[in-house]
Amino acid sequence: MNWLVVFSNLQDSPSGVPIYTKIVEAVRSAISSALLTPGDKLPTNRELSTFLKVDRSTVARAYLELSRLGLIDSQVGRGTFVSGRGGDMPGEFPGSTNARSFNGSVNAFSNGSGTGPVDWNSRYSRYVDGLTGFINRLPQYGDDDVISFAGGIPAQDFYPSEEFKKIVRSVLDSERGDRMFDYSPFNGEPELRQSVIKHLEGKGMSVRPDELLILSGSQQGIDLVSNLLVDPGDCVIVEEPTYFWAISNFKARQARLIGCSHDDEGISLSEVENALRRHAPKFLYLMPNNQNPTGRTISLARRKALVELCARYGTPILEDDYSGDLSYDGDPLPTLHSLSPNKDLVIYQGTFSKALCPGVRLGWLVGPAAVMEKLSFAKRTSDLATNSMAQVILNEFLTRGLYQEHLSRVNAVYKRRRDTMVASLEQEFKAYPGVSFIKPSGGLFLWLTLPAGLSNRDLLNYARQEKVVFSPGDLCFTEATGLNHLRLCFIQNDEATTRSGIARLARAYGKYIDYVNASALGLDSERPRTSNHVLI
Amino acid sequence: MNWLVVFSNLQDSPSGVPIYTKIVEAVRSAISSALLTPGDKLPTNRELSTFLKVDRSTVARAYLELSRLGLIDSQVGRGTFVSGRGGDMPGEFPGSTNARSFNGSVNAFSNGSGTGPVDWNSRYSRYVDGLTGFINRLPQYGDDDVISFAGGIPAQDFYPSEEFKKIVRSVLDSERGDRMFDYSPFNGEPELRQSVIKHLEGKGMSVRPDELLILSGSQQGIDLVSNLLVDPGDCVIVEEPTYFWAISNFKARQARLIGCSHDDEGISLSEVENALRRHAPKFLYLMPNNQNPTGRTISLARRKALVELCARYGTPILEDDYSGDLSYDGDPLPTLHSLSPNKDLVIYQGTFSKALCPGVRLGWLVGPAAVMEKLSFAKRTSDLATNSMAQVILNEFLTRGLYQEHLSRVNAVYKRRRDTMVASLEQEFKAYPGVSFIKPSGGLFLWLTLPAGLSNRDLLNYARQEKVVFSPGDLCFTEATGLNHLRLCFIQNDEATTRSGIARLARAYGKYIDYVNASALGLDSERPRTSNHVLI
Repeated sequence: MNWLVVFSNLQDSPSGVPIYTKIVEAVRSAISSALLTPGDKLPTNRELSTFLKVDRSTVARAYLELSRLGLIDSQVGRGTFVSGRGGDMPGEFPGSTNARSFNGSVNAFSNGSGTGPVDWNSRYSRYVDGLTGFINRLPQYGDDDVISFAGGIPAQDFYPSEEFKKIVRSVLDSERGDRMFDYSPFNGEPELRQSVIKHLEGKGMSVRPDELLILSGSQQGIDLVSNLLVDPGDCVIVEEPTYFWAISNFKARQARLIGCSHDDEGISLSEVENALRRHAPKFLYLMPNNQNPTGRTISLARRKALVELCARYGTPILEDDYSGDLSYDGDPLPTLHSLSPNKDLVIYQGTFSKALCPGVRLGWLVGPAAVMEKLSFAKRTSDLATNSMAQVILNEFLTRGLYQEHLSRVNAVYKRRRDTMVASLEQEFKAYPGVSFIKPSGGLFLWLTLPAGLSNRDLLNYARQEKVVFSPGDLCFTEATGLNHLRLCFIQNDEATTRSGIARLARAYGKYIDYVNASALGLDSERPRTSNHVLI
Repeated sequence: MNWLVVFSNLQDSPSGVPIYTKIVEAVRSAISSALLTPGDKLPTNRELSTFLKVDRSTVARAYLELSRLGLIDSQVGRGTFVSGRGGDMPGEFPGSTNARSFNGSVNAFSNGSGTGPVDWNSRYSRYVDGLTGFINRLPQYGDDDVISFAGGIPAQDFYPSEEFKKIVRSVLDSERGDRMFDYSPFNGEPELRQSVIKHLEGKGMSVRPDELLILSGSQQGIDLVSNLLVDPGDCVIVEEPTYFWAISNFKARQARLIGCSHDDEGISLSEVENALRRHAPKFLYLMPNNQNPTGRTISLARRKALVELCARYGTPILEDDYSGDLSYDGDPLPTLHSLSPNKDLVIYQGTFSKALCPGVRLGWLVGPAAVMEKLSFAKRTSDLATNSMAQVILNEFLTRGLYQEHLSRVNAVYKRRRDTMVASLEQEFKAYPGVSFIKPSGGLFLWLTLPAGLSNRDLLNYARQEKVVFSPGDLCFTEATGLNHLRLCFIQNDEATTRSGIARLARAYGKYIDYVNASALGLDSERPRTSNHVLI
């Protein structure tokens, strides 16, 4: 019973450190020193919480963190086991019962030719270790017979491929054809820049040319702002939960993330003010429209209050309008950028990707000229310039007025799909009290919450049996929590498929609940096997 | 004479700090405290070195650094002047007599609406401040009547635009057409990945699929490796001089750069070993073929010794083969990756951009699978995926065998252009002892060295009068040095233009030398006005 040794000195370790952190560190160091080795069984939540005289939620939180770090595997019905050594190995899908397919640490790559091991480690690398194994092995596309509410890309049926093809042909025949293969200026193709400025005028934003930078996709905006502003140890305020790849980017730069929760109007003002006062954060990262993953939209009043508050503290905002044009219940609200009392408070990040098709990889940043100058520098150190072809084509699409046409079409379709998912959820889950969701007014995502204590990972195992998948919501939290949330993308499937998928999900949930109830009664219910098919 | 006050306590400041750093800090702090204000004249090199009893090269180094930081302007024939305040303003072209076109610090953007200034600063931001003003205002393209040896892109006349257009048309007509607008898998289009692996086989490199990552241009490789490996304060070994945007990227991540000089066979082994022993660097960044900016190629013996040495120390190498296919005197030498005794020692970075056209923005990294997994993660946090269109087109170009054809054609043309530039330099500069250059065996660049003490910035002012420009070589050094070097790109101009451009350069040099000699004799020679037309 090694674990008694592992945890016996826990209460003597420095106070001021949360217990769950102590648990994580104790396991991590026990693994490093080989006190615990792969396959060792850890105590159950009940055993450990009793032993340590702490709440069961504390142990659950520690185990989730350890699972994320790839150090333990929790297996429904079997228990929790040590899965690897130290902090320098790729993580496995947390909660999976699969054998670890890659067991070597990076250093194990040395081939014994008489030379020393090559050191590829860094703080970033160690952070990534806990995630890559899991993330990189997620398949890109689901099986044909699986209905996927995972992922977050527009519906392929509505890609404007024919219009694009027509445009490409006509550009090739014109004198602009050659420009497609030349370097684009580092701040973007002049014509596209004009078109984007005009597009933003339509949103009530007045943008000067030196306030605009064209990007290789909107994710690059997060990367550049993070590059410009985040020194290791700096604080960044985010909505809790928030966009997975933003969390990853900020954490990879060793930022400390301060998550602020939502109320019905959006991110909590009092929590933001508290964080501004206590942590002097570098900036706030916000998605005011159709937030990823919750689908929430910040109210107009809250938007005004937020920019006032941040202006008062002199703290910049990165406004990620990743899906602003996908709006189903009226026009989008004014952007934080347009509401800001200072021209220098907000960097606005936009893209057409979510309304068009993602392969184009174009986005832009708008902000104070002096800051944009530095971001342009960061852009050049990052990838020198944006692909020219995509810019020429997209500009043509915009100037021909095809974007607005396309937008009307997809907004009508996506609105129906949202309504269908909402109706199906109300129908299929009405037998299950405690399951709730937020109805989004735009965008791609719907946020479903299970009763506290239930696990999306366990539900996912049942869901796979029923041939339906979703994104695990806990990945969108800055800390090890949120296991009882699911993110459902509602725009990818037609209405019939959506209805059928939600019915499958409800069936899976029913089986999971049966298992949970049977376990509570001590019955031996059948547990589903896991597989690798999850999407983020 | 404010400067006497500024420098009077210099010798009392902490020992252990180099004198030139003390000079820089004294000026910087005097400007911050308004002891020195814009327009104030600083002492001449001779005055200050006499006053401080230090070598004149020490003062020169300090002034170059201050000039880079945008804090002073050195004007030939007039003297050295304070140009701005503090460290938080964009730099101006060092050595230019132009009025500063942008005088506000970032914080000056606050519009006085009663709210506090917004803080957009960070360590990165402060580093960039010294460079953006200069870099971002560099024009993208030269005037028509100026012959440019600056920049580093392939000759536009040889872009395979017609072949590309043909390919795009045929792809649009095929079922692959739609794929051009979809997300590409994060590690690249499967077909392109196959083609790149085959291309690398042709270089004697055996690459497994999990060892390859397709990128949005080769610069992204530097960015991702830097993201993965560099913690602030970490050391990175580079060739001295090296690629400007690599220096910028590493410095922006707060790396300490250890420059090692070249001998005829490439980067100095003893300096590398010394740096490995003393600094425990995270990795070496090397361009073994046609190094940017010197055009040097590392010999086979040196390559073998380098990988042996690094394997012994367990220190990884980032091998940037940005121009490996442009080889004019026989086949390229084996890559460090293929010579490495360990499969896990080298990350190899390649691209077709320099041989084809830069607008395509595609490159790749090859390295140990476990490291590539983390780099894939970094890629996704950076821009999620690479543009699909470019990948589909490039793959078609490769599978049709057009790349090898194209390469033979441009290699023949570029070889003649190199020979023409070499012959012209020998001819035009034979009257000027002390001017030397390195003959490159491939790539784009030729490295010209003026006698020590001369300044490329001053020469550039004369060169502009003669309608010829080049890249200032000092930008490629990790520290404030190298003012007497020029980088000339020899592939962009046809042979007649090259001859004419080198003749102009020699004429400019003659006038500069006349001025220098006249100054030494106390005569009043005419000094040229500067303008903003420089390219990097």
